[in-house]
Amino acid sequence: MKNVTRRDFAATLGKGAAAVTILGASPLLGAPISAQNKKSLGVALVGLGSYSTHQLAPALEETQFCHLAGIVTGTKEKEAVWKRSYGLPDSSVYNYENFDDIANNDSVDIVYVVLPNSMHADFSIRAARAGKHVIVEKPMAMNVAECNAIMEACAASDVRLSVGYRMQSDPYTQQVKRFVRDKTYGEVQFINSDAAYISRGNPDQWRLNRALSGGGALMNMGVYSIQSSIYGAGENPISVSAQEFSTRPDYFKDTDETITAQFEFENGAVAHMMTSHNISGNRMKVHGSKGWFVLEPAHSYGPIGGHTSDGTVLKYPHKSQMALQMDDFAQHILAGAPNMAPGEMGKRDMIIVEAIYRSIREGGKRQQLDLAEMGLVRV
Amino acid sequence: MKNVTRRDFAATLGKGAAAVTILGASPLLGAPISAQNKKSLGVALVGLGSYSTHQLAPALEETQFCHLAGIVTGTKEKEAVWKRSYGLPDSSVYNYENFDDIANNDSVDIVYVVLPNSMHADFSIRAARAGKHVIVEKPMAMNVAECNAIMEACAASDVRLSVGYRMQSDPYTQQVKRFVRDKTYGEVQFINSDAAYISRGNPDQWRLNRALSGGGALMNMGVYSIQSSIYGAGENPISVSAQEFSTRPDYFKDTDETITAQFEFENGAVAHMMTSHNISGNRMKVHGSKGWFVLEPAHSYGPIGGHTSDGTVLKYPHKSQMALQMDDFAQHILAGAPNMAPGEMGKRDMIIVEAIYRSIREGGKRQQLDLAEMGLVRV
Repeated sequence: MKNVTRRDFAATLGKGAAAVTILGASPLLGAPISAQNKKSLGVALVGLGSYSTHQLAPALEETQFCHLAGIVTGTKEKEAVWKRSYGLPDSSVYNYENFDDIANNDSVDIVYVVLPNSMHADFSIRAARAGKHVIVEKPMAMNVAECNAIMEACAASDVRLSVGYRMQSDPYTQQVKRFVRDKTYGEVQFINSDAAYISRGNPDQWRLNRALSGGGALMNMGVYSIQSSIYGAGENPISVSAQEFSTRPDYFKDTDETITAQFEFENGAVAHMMTSHNISGNRMKVHGSKGWFVLEPAHSYGPIGGHTSDGTVLKYPHKSQMALQMDDFAQHILAGAPNMAPGEMGKRDMIIVEAIYRSIREGGKRQQLDLAEMGLVRV
Repeated sequence: MKNVTRRDFAATLGKGAAAVTILGASPLLGAPISAQNKKSLGVALVGLGSYSTHQLAPALEETQFCHLAGIVTGTKEKEAVWKRSYGLPDSSVYNYENFDDIANNDSVDIVYVVLPNSMHADFSIRAARAGKHVIVEKPMAMNVAECNAIMEACAASDVRLSVGYRMQSDPYTQQVKRFVRDKTYGEVQFINSDAAYISRGNPDQWRLNRALSGGGALMNMGVYSIQSSIYGAGENPISVSAQEFSTRPDYFKDTDETITAQFEFENGAVAHMMTSHNISGNRMKVHGSKGWFVLEPAHSYGPIGGHTSDGTVLKYPHKSQMALQMDDFAQHILAGAPNMAPGEMGKRDMIIVEAIYRSIREGGKRQQLDLAEMGLVRV
């Protein structure tokens, strides 16, 4: 019940277990169904861009507890291709106008919002109101206010909410978290995290358009660096300072090209992150008092690699991170497993994103972060 | 003639080649000698702490073009030990009071100042006035003004000046410079450099005493990170911003514990460095547009290690960096080989050190650096 705010708690109590059944009620099938009785949950992908096409849809073929059950697209031509590729019925195909009708489709349990950032909040809230559990791609939204609105909508509809943080379900990330928790390499002292790639092609793509993206590198790969800085430290940061670097203003017309940021942690650790749309970087290294460990590559689709100061080579069988991520969320819904990337985590990262942009505007001034007070303890 | 200022140039011209002979004139031997006619130059170590004892003196046994010819120490007991160990005559042993008499010792060609930072300028200037070539340990001095004074004294006495930047003579560093110059891995985009170790023992040691050190981690390992950021980029930076982190103020009473800094280069590269007296870190990585290369360890006494994105493992036979460094300087004096670490380089780094401390005082504000204007082009 992570998403339930104090305000909504009494109402939720009143609904109890029966709410789940009501949630699944379908005038089409004429009989209420409960997601909790299903063995596999239906996922509708909202937005059929590259990530849905080349990552999420193939991943859904590998999942154990979910399957592709619907598509939402604004591009008519994509409908036929996807229906043919994945054997979807007409009743599982929506556009942005009739999207809200998905409330009546019992084959869809989860709506995965894979749209440009500026549309995350709107479609996440509409999905919640349609009674669907929500996965919203990272970054969670354009700003903290939108994160709050999404969380409130999900709480009000008693649906579960997760952010598309695929790395949280990756076994290498989980090994990093164990190293940190168990102090295998001593107390964490320094984390170095780079998540960056060279952006090419159309300078008008949505990621480079602030109105659609909310920001450049930081709003794209940057959130992975924020994430790995935090799970590398094992706790939320208490301050951040940041710098912006620009070398191609003609191409990066209104979004950030390269950003570096430094985090301070209460346990004494310091982290430095770099994110860029004009530099290649894909690595996290954690320096402990007794040694170090590194993931490299650290933030890509995998296989991830890793090794440690004592010569240990980290090696896990490669599975689609997105398949693991969607299965983890399905298990959260079906069996009460932990939510690996709850809305609070996405909101925490957006608080940090806002602080980073503020630090840059204020000439690099360190920004205090009051994340502990907000109860955002999950790292 | 790198050290000759415009002001001194006419005077130097007037002295010409004969100046070298005059420089070596010795009332003790009764006959003028020229360092240029020697095959091996005599080095006097000023300050017999750990670095002289465990690094420089052993290195002098490996050099081809220098040898230990004198010691200067304030500790009476060390005199007998060193005389016995290295077969030094009484006439080659000095203390801080009679140091200036070294002018009369023709067996000493080079004075290597290995004292606490606060004594660098005084003894470098006195060595120059004694007609000796000077190596001054890094950091060159307490501040830029002292660097200028050292350079002026050396120019006035027509002696050569070098900073104890052992890494400049290391074959791995030279390979890095070739990679950068030849664009083997494309245009340099990002450099990540860590030079840090965990300081232990007496909190009153001179490195942790600002009056003697001028600063903490930054004035110690930090200058190596500045150096590798610069040769990683292949040019001098145009701006720097910096942050300080403190977790053990009881131990680090008046010197910096951990500093991070970001450099901006005209070629578009960005560098991030971390230095600390409370974190382990020893690495430089250069991300180019076509790949990357890394030195790890990068800043220690060796063997240095390195590898690249195309699987190349860098491997050079291990030689004492200090032996290579002192031989390079001897070859500069004897044969006109390039000065690998001239005073200008030490001064440049001190300009950057001052800018880093200023950025920290100003809350992380980016500091512009006008190094190009100052003619400090050597990287």
